[in-house]
Amino acid sequence: MTTPKAPRGRGRPAGSRAGDPGTRERILGAARTLFAERGYDKASIRAIAQAAGVDAALVHHYFGAKEQVFEAAVEVSFAPALGATEALTEGTVDRSEAGERLARYFLDVWENPATRAPLLAVLRSAVTNETAATVLRGFVLRRLLSRVVGELDQPDAALRAQLAASQMIGLAVTRYVLKIEPIASVPTEELVARIAPTLQRHLTGA
Amino acid sequence: MTTPKAPRGRGRPAGSRAGDPGTRERILGAARTLFAERGYDKASIRAIAQAAGVDAALVHHYFGAKEQVFEAAVEVSFAPALGATEALTEGTVDRSEAGERLARYFLDVWENPATRAPLLAVLRSAVTNETAATVLRGFVLRRLLSRVVGELDQPDAALRAQLAASQMIGLAVTRYVLKIEPIASVPTEELVARIAPTLQRHLTGA
Repeated sequence: MTTPKAPRGRGRPAGSRAGDPGTRERILGAARTLFAERGYDKASIRAIAQAAGVDAALVHHYFGAKEQVFEAAVEVSFAPALGATEALTEGTVDRSEAGERLARYFLDVWENPATRAPLLAVLRSAVTNETAATVLRGFVLRRLLSRVVGELDQPDAALRAQLAASQMIGLAVTRYVLKIEPIASVPTEELVARIAPTLQRHLTGA
Repeated sequence: MTTPKAPRGRGRPAGSRAGDPGTRERILGAARTLFAERGYDKASIRAIAQAAGVDAALVHHYFGAKEQVFEAAVEVSFAPALGATEALTEGTVDRSEAGERLARYFLDVWENPATRAPLLAVLRSAVTNETAATVLRGFVLRRLLSRVVGELDQPDAALRAQLAASQMIGLAVTRYVLKIEPIASVPTEELVARIAPTLQRHLTGA
C-alpha cells in the first residue's frame, strides 16, 4: 500500500491507490458512516481507513487531519439543506412568506430519512465534541447563515438568522432526537403553521 | 465490602457500607461527574462505583440499573429548572407576561455556569444515547411540561408547551453548545426581548 508524500489536495496524484478513481469518495463514505455510528470522538482516522480498505496515510493525503475529514462529511450531509437560502428568496420579492417557506423547506429535509440521518449524525458529533462543534459552527455560518444574512439586508441580520436557526434546531431536537409527543408526530403542515410566524418574526419582525 | 440483597430503595438498610450516611449522595455525585465527563454510554456502573469508592452492588442497591442512576442525576440537574413553571404562573393572573417571564427564567438558569453545566451534560447524553433520551423525555414531560400544560388549560396545551420548549432548547444549543456568534454573546436582556414574543405566541397565541 502506498503512503503518498505529495501535498494533500482533491486532485488525484499519480501512484497506485491514491490515484484509484473513487478512492476519495470511498474514504468519505466510510468516514460518514463511522461518524454517524460512533460520533466524532470514536471515529479514528485508522478506523475510517480500515472501513474504506485503504492505508491511513491515504486518508491524510486526501483530507488532512480528522477535523478536515469531518468537514468534508458535514459538507455532504448539509448539501440538501443548502437549498434553504434559495427557498427563502427564489422567485419572489415578497418577504412576508419567508417564514413559511423556510419552515416548509426545513421540514422537507428533516422528514426525509435519507437527508435526516446524516444531519442527526453531525448534530450528535457537534453536541459532544468541541472540535466537531467548531467545524459545524464554521460551516453553518459560512455556508448557510451568511447567505440568509445577505438577503435580509438589516443591521441585526446575523442575530435574526441565528434566532430563526435556533427555533429550527430546537424543533429538530424535540421532534427527531428526544421524540417528545405530541410534537414528534404532529403533521408537518400543522408544524409549518405553528413555526412559520416565529421564523417570520425573527427574520423580519419589528 | 457488602453486597446487600435487600430490595433497592432510598431507605438506608442495616449493614456496613450500605448504611453509611451520605453513601447514596456520594454515588450520585460520582455518577453526575462521570455522565458529564464521559456521557451516558461510557459512564459504567463499575466506573461510577469506583469513583464513589464503593462496590458496584451498592450502586445497584441504591438506584437499580444505570438508567435509574441517570434518572436520579437528571432529577438533580433539573432541580433549578423546575422553578420555571412557578415563574410562569406565580402571583399573577395575567397570561400576557408568560413568554417574558419564561424567557428570563430560562436564561437565568443557563447563564449561571453552576446550573448550566449539569443541564448541558444531560443534553449531551440524551442526544447521543437512546436510553438517556428516553429518560430525559419522560422527565421533561412528567416534571416540566405537564405543569405548564395544566396551567395553559387549552386543548392543544401539550403541543404549545413543547413548541415553547423547542425554541428554548434551540437557543441553548446555538448559544451554549455551538456558540455561534453573535447569538452566543448577545446580552441576556436583548435575548429576552427577542425570544419572549415567540414563547408567548406558542403558549397563548391564536
